[in-house]
Amino acid sequence: MTIQQSAQPDILNANCPSRTVLRHITDRWTPMIVTVLTPRRQVRFKELRERVQGISPKVLTETLRSMERDGLVTRVVTASVPPRVDYELTDLGMSITRPIAALRRWAEGHVTEIEEHRQAYDNALH
Amino acid sequence: MTIQQSAQPDILNANCPSRTVLRHITDRWTPMIVTVLTPRRQVRFKELRERVQGISPKVLTETLRSMERDGLVTRVVTASVPPRVDYELTDLGMSITRPIAALRRWAEGHVTEIEEHRQAYDNALH
Repeated sequence: MTIQQSAQPDILNANCPSRTVLRHITDRWTPMIVTVLTPRRQVRFKELRERVQGISPKVLTETLRSMERDGLVTRVVTASVPPRVDYELTDLGMSITRPIAALRRWAEGHVTEIEEHRQAYDNALH
Repeated sequence: MTIQQSAQPDILNANCPSRTVLRHITDRWTPMIVTVLTPRRQVRFKELRERVQGISPKVLTETLRSMERDGLVTRVVTASVPPRVDYELTDLGMSITRPIAALRRWAEGHVTEIEEHRQAYDNALH
């Protein structure tokens, strides 16, 4: 395989860092976390954990850290006893909410149709 | 954990089948395959393999089969010697091209900004 480095970012290019960006924003939990943080507001870890059903505390922590590292969310620490920690989308994080909402609506809106396709496909094989 | 089955599909619900739909449309290669198949046209396996850099023939075959099972692509077999096989988006597949193009543009358009965030985050830790 030849290595082609294009001047413009291109997800089809194996060496383009936009692939990692795409992987992060489409990882298993990021779209759901973005969904809970939309519309923009501060949300506590506990609420995120409850709303994103099935996520473990460890994986939620790791995903939030990765999103914070990428600049999508910010941790807001309030000095209280115990200290209160909230998560909030940054401006960069806000800019991904519309594409993610479109994906989510598509997934939620086409469940029945896709299940019918799967059924027909599987029936045709047997 | 209590099992809640909501009437409306909801990706935040651990038992909702829309989660599987979301996983499929955001899997590692599906957005890239959709990108190559857009605008709608028939594309041969060989071209898909060349344009989606880094994908193995085995994984491309598996991903196309999963997309065909979900009703996103159709295999078009032309009777020739050897038979020619092309892949094309269905109407359902076409309906996902816009959300996926938005994601792709976002990923390609924010590479530099995200890399700067990562650098700043890592520097702050050390």
